[in-house]
Amino acid sequence: MPKFRVRSHPLRKSASGARLAAGLISGTSMDGVDAALVRISGSSASPHVRLAAFVTVPYPAAVRFSVLRLAAGSPAPSREFSQLNQLLGEIFAEAALRVCRRARIRPEKLFVIGSHGQTIYHQGTPSREAGRMVRSTLQIAEPAAIALRTGAPVVADFRKADIAAGGQGAPLVPMLDYLLLRSPRSGTIALNIGGIANLTVIPAGARPSDARGFDTGPGNMAIDGLVRVMTRGRTSFDREGRMARRGKLIESILERALEHPFFRKRPPKSAGREEFGREFLERYLIRSKHARPEDLVRTATELTARTIAGAIRRFVPPQARASRLVVSGGGAHNAFLMERLAALLSGLELVASDEFGLPVDAKEAIAFAVLADRTMRGFCGNLPSVTGARRAVVLGSIVRPWGAREARFRI
Amino acid sequence: MPKFRVRSHPLRKSASGARLAAGLISGTSMDGVDAALVRISGSSASPHVRLAAFVTVPYPAAVRFSVLRLAAGSPAPSREFSQLNQLLGEIFAEAALRVCRRARIRPEKLFVIGSHGQTIYHQGTPSREAGRMVRSTLQIAEPAAIALRTGAPVVADFRKADIAAGGQGAPLVPMLDYLLLRSPRSGTIALNIGGIANLTVIPAGARPSDARGFDTGPGNMAIDGLVRVMTRGRTSFDREGRMARRGKLIESILERALEHPFFRKRPPKSAGREEFGREFLERYLIRSKHARPEDLVRTATELTARTIAGAIRRFVPPQARASRLVVSGGGAHNAFLMERLAALLSGLELVASDEFGLPVDAKEAIAFAVLADRTMRGFCGNLPSVTGARRAVVLGSIVRPWGAREARFRI
Repeated sequence: MPKFRVRSHPLRKSASGARLAAGLISGTSMDGVDAALVRISGSSASPHVRLAAFVTVPYPAAVRFSVLRLAAGSPAPSREFSQLNQLLGEIFAEAALRVCRRARIRPEKLFVIGSHGQTIYHQGTPSREAGRMVRSTLQIAEPAAIALRTGAPVVADFRKADIAAGGQGAPLVPMLDYLLLRSPRSGTIALNIGGIANLTVIPAGARPSDARGFDTGPGNMAIDGLVRVMTRGRTSFDREGRMARRGKLIESILERALEHPFFRKRPPKSAGREEFGREFLERYLIRSKHARPEDLVRTATELTARTIAGAIRRFVPPQARASRLVVSGGGAHNAFLMERLAALLSGLELVASDEFGLPVDAKEAIAFAVLADRTMRGFCGNLPSVTGARRAVVLGSIVRPWGAREARFRI
Repeated sequence: MPKFRVRSHPLRKSASGARLAAGLISGTSMDGVDAALVRISGSSASPHVRLAAFVTVPYPAAVRFSVLRLAAGSPAPSREFSQLNQLLGEIFAEAALRVCRRARIRPEKLFVIGSHGQTIYHQGTPSREAGRMVRSTLQIAEPAAIALRTGAPVVADFRKADIAAGGQGAPLVPMLDYLLLRSPRSGTIALNIGGIANLTVIPAGARPSDARGFDTGPGNMAIDGLVRVMTRGRTSFDREGRMARRGKLIESILERALEHPFFRKRPPKSAGREEFGREFLERYLIRSKHARPEDLVRTATELTARTIAGAIRRFVPPQARASRLVVSGGGAHNAFLMERLAALLSGLELVASDEFGLPVDAKEAIAFAVLADRTMRGFCGNLPSVTGARRAVVLGSIVRPWGAREARFRI
């Protein structure tokens, strides 16, 4: 797999309609803010997107602890939600300023910043609340703080319009896959291996309504969780899959883990920390006190590869004419996992998303830059065939900065 | 005092630049959503605002209970904040739809809906969080739900840009007072008697930077709290001040309550449930088990009147040339309180805000309709001389509905 390398091109907004946009996200690992700065040109249906710079700004330990606590559902007073929202807004703003410095761009030159924020709650299926069926999603990192610190308009709260339109509010990255990876003659499967692994299927010659997307199960979550437990927290992931490569597959554990009901469920389906977190590890993978750590990590890696391959074989229809698998996310750095996937999916060409100008670590942040650009220009951002929404909607809320061209500071 | 009456005029958006806007708010009493529909015309500096309809939609009991719990700082999991935010969004949307029906306006005809939401946390002065000084404010009631249900653009989260600009995020209604009540030759004091009482001072011939605003202390909060305690919850307020009128002033209790340090503090100052809630009642007003309820209510009413009058005498400078006091809020219905104020402030003409087209119960909701209109047109909404912000900013975040003229639903 090609390695991701940061590229820095000094760019400016051009007269040809090209524009600069930044995307900010902190994912389910909750360890910091990824910030991408891109140049977008071309039509809305077939944009050209070029990465100018990418940085990651880790959360301070105390902040990460608070975020993990709230996301885990620990009760906290409204004060804590409010103050943490503002504090994360400042940290996201700094990530935006840093990626601008890296690209040597003045932040107020940005056409827009798309900030996904930090998810601390997500419920894609409704439950009864005071007599009504309610689904909801909650991302924090105050956009007004980002707008005022950078002087650029900010789009945030991307998932809420899809939820309000009856969708699951996720996944949203498939729109980027559709815009940048589709091809008239061959089908593409985009695989993102974050904590959870998910697929976007874009059949050959697809229209937007032909796209599908769903979670396949654990991505890095099971592997990372095991490594953490086995090394008592000294290591938090299996670098390049070296530990797994040394280990021996434990067939009995693998068989049993493959019986988890999620894997048989038909798409659309989505998974979270609830399904494949600590409890899953203890119930399915850490079955014997005597197993060697590398054997368990080998087995978890095989579980990830087999469930991804199985989902592709079972749930991607032949009419999609899929010929390539475009991989992104932290899991793309796990060379051993990539080898296992290639072996299990011999009919598909495995390529890193880098080859399409989307470095594996930057792809999600890039997606929110592109989605924000669509919002500012009045284009929809969700794919109803993927999220289950009743229709396509313009995503997000827009916060304008004081320095905006549009602002008239008189009474 | 003139009574507030709902007026219903069927209106349309005119070609002359006049536009329809709705304002939604649930205040500190947390009992339901006030919705105002107004027609706005004229210049941004001197708009004409006419109320077309006003409705109040009470919260269901279970919802009010949840809101009160979160606002009181009871710890709750992120799930509860997220689901309640969505649920309140639906209730706010229904209030918007209802006020449109009342005015016989199709909701998608609205130029904008301004939704203040429900405050569940507000901290205007910073405290240290993970090594940074942070102030924040948190309103809930999902704007995406309002936008998608009504088909109109929604502006929400008004307080956050002022907070991000170093202000207290409150009060914001003074902008409405400045726009609608200022006069070249005489000064105006706008007095809103909600749970807390607050003043806006607009000197004769004021520029925006000449406006001042601050809280004077308890509005209805002390009176209502006492009535609730004394009637064991059977009654929640003193209708027209009848109970107070029957009572006898207890001088010793009044003297002591007037010594509360808040009253001596110089503006800018703001108060909340923290200062004048239950604890204040028990410590300052319910001093004797043998006092008659009506005497205590009489005394609390006098405290409210004296602290308002005292604040005006002490803190409104003679250069303001204030000649009239324009009263709004639920307290304007308390005839006895109004008589006491008139007696204590014999130099000022007391008028209800109704006389300026702002019915006393609808004024706050109207304010957020007008502020949303300013945001949509790129005008600032805060008064830095009132909130302490470093500068005037465009307030709020904008959520566009799927049906918006601007939306293009193609890829």
